Amino acid sequence: MNEAVQAPELAVKSWLNTDHPLSLGALRGRVVALYAFQMLCPGCVQYSMPQARQVDALFDKSDLAVIGLHTVFEHHEANTEAVLKAFVHENRLPFPIAIDMPAVNESPFPTTMYRYQMRGTPTLIVIDREGRQRKHKFGHEHDLVVGAELAALIAE
Amino acid sequence: MNEAVQAPELAVKSWLNTDHPLSLGALRGRVVALYAFQMLCPGCVQYSMPQARQVDALFDKSDLAVIGLHTVFEHHEANTEAVLKAFVHENRLPFPIAIDMPAVNESPFPTTMYRYQMRGTPTLIVIDREGRQRKHKFGHEHDLVVGAELAALIAE
Amino acid sequence: MNEAVQAPELAVKSWLNTDHPLSLGALRGRVVALYAFQMLCPGCVQYSMPQARQVDALFDKSDLAVIGLHTVFEHHEANTEAVLKAFVHENRLPFPIAIDMPAVNESPFPTTMYRYQMRGTPTLIVIDREGRQRKHKFGHEHDLVVGAELAALIAE
Amino acid sequence: MNEAVQAPELAVKSWLNTDHPLSLGALRGRVVALYAFQMLCPGCVQYSMPQARQVDALFDKSDLAVIGLHTVFEHHEANTEAVLKAFVHENRLPFPIAIDMPAVNESPFPTTMYRYQMRGTPTLIVIDREGRQRKHKFGHEHDLVVGAELAALIAE
Repeated sequence: MNEAVQAPELAVKSWLNTDHPLSLGALRGRVVALYAFQMLCPGCVQYSMPQARQVDALFDKSDLAVIGLHTVFEHHEANTEAVLKAFVHENRLPFPIAIDMPAVNESPFPTTMYRYQMRGTPTLIVIDREGRQRKHKFGHEHDLVVGAELAALIAE
Repeated sequence: MNEAVQAPELAVKSWLNTDHPLSLGALRGRVVALYAFQMLCPGCVQYSMPQARQVDALFDKSDLAVIGLHTVFEHHEANTEAVLKAFVHENRLPFPIAIDMPAVNESPFPTTMYRYQMRGTPTLIVIDREGRQRKHKFGHEHDLVVGAELAALIAE
Repeated sequence: MNEAVQAPELAVKSWLNTDHPLSLGALRGRVVALYAFQMLCPGCVQYSMPQARQVDALFDKSDLAVIGLHTVFEHHEANTEAVLKAFVHENRLPFPIAIDMPAVNESPFPTTMYRYQMRGTPTLIVIDREGRQRKHKFGHEHDLVVGAELAALIAE
Repeated sequence: MNEAVQAPELAVKSWLNTDHPLSLGALRGRVVALYAFQMLCPGCVQYSMPQARQVDALFDKSDLAVIGLHTVFEHHEANTEAVLKAFVHENRLPFPIAIDMPAVNESPFPTTMYRYQMRGTPTLIVIDREGRQRKHKFGHEHDLVVGAELAALIAE
């Protein structure tokens, strides 16, 4: 854990479910659970987004911030903001959702996804109160593990 | 069962996963499992489309045709054909998928959905070899029941 | 399917949930779903017995008979009839349950289990209206498949 | 949380999976997750024991002790120690398991169950490092909640 590095800042094109842009810098002091997803990724719909919703409901907002990060790296033509808004509504996602900044170069990966070197979706990144990245999990993580790890970081 | 009525014909704007348009008339002689869905409906992603895929894999194509029917009645701006193609790819749906014909009048419901008086998605309609509607189920139907009912109709 | 062989008769020490002994001979004319289980087998408790209960509820008794077969081949000291009665009550199993006849020789396997050459529990055996064995599945079988196969045999 | 009361000591007839008797007194300094169960209770087999096994695997033994408590209040004739040993083996439960002391009076409930005023099985009791009872949950508790609560108590 001593080796934990500072988490790169989010690069966000636009936000849903919040009336002002968020940043990791501004969230310093809280644990952040960053759920990277794509709305057309079946594993995200079935496992990751329901977990994110439950995490958001379980913990105190002053201790933990849940953020969805829509990281489009395939089917760009389908993954528009209009579709995402409908997806968020249908899946009843109440937490702030960042639309990852498209790649500036020729990378297929949007900017935040690239900075975190994510391998796909779903990916869960957890950042501690000091802004250090403490978890990077590609694929579904068991609820018991997520609950325990987030609570341990909140208690630090 | 004697009261079963002839199933209304599909009204289709366009098809995916087939190089020629289908019709109930042309499918006469086979049982048809018609899965009405919307790609942004969580219950469709979690339960209905996986079941449709398994039904499609289980039965002989000469006995049973699985057809997906994309019945958009909300979030029209999001439910474009481009998005649907990506959805079909990501959810690995191999069966023909009909895009329901938009309403001609001011109804919020597309034409086939209206003809069948569906209440929402997911909905499963089953049509026998004679073209008669034998099942109309709104919401998820248990796998055991679906397997038994389809096999019984195939055996008629 | 032409190769289907006559199913060996059950060898039963005693019955629960029926006031008279059953036999495959006497059930001729009906499809039989024979669920071999052990009450201390976790897969039986989680998957097999719930499926047996649903199969029993779904089909007409004149078409299909569900029979549980308690095939003890380990933990003999624990698998007494008193415990089985409590298990049947707690798991709300309404169908007749046969206690397999203990081995007459030094086999670890009870008699019916041996006759059917079962490899363990849970095992599902399906017998058609003519008394022929048509399915032998060790481990859990998908609900959709079970529903379809039973309905097809009922319709023969 | 200030109102948390000291957890009553366990009253144990005998132990499995440990070569010496345990007590809450001797476990002081660790968080204790006490899983009360009956082996013939379907909800215990399906949900509670798998969770107990995962909790036992997740946390450091120096922080948390998982204890199973077999609280027989029905089917006494079936719930013998021999059956329990087979159950523990089949369900691969690695943690210490206490057999609750039978009632001394005419209560249907064994002694520890009575002391904790449990309403049935499964029940999860959580005790903090100071020996105070901090959770009493009848029925299944969500993995996310259990993980978070145990980690928070460990961190106190």
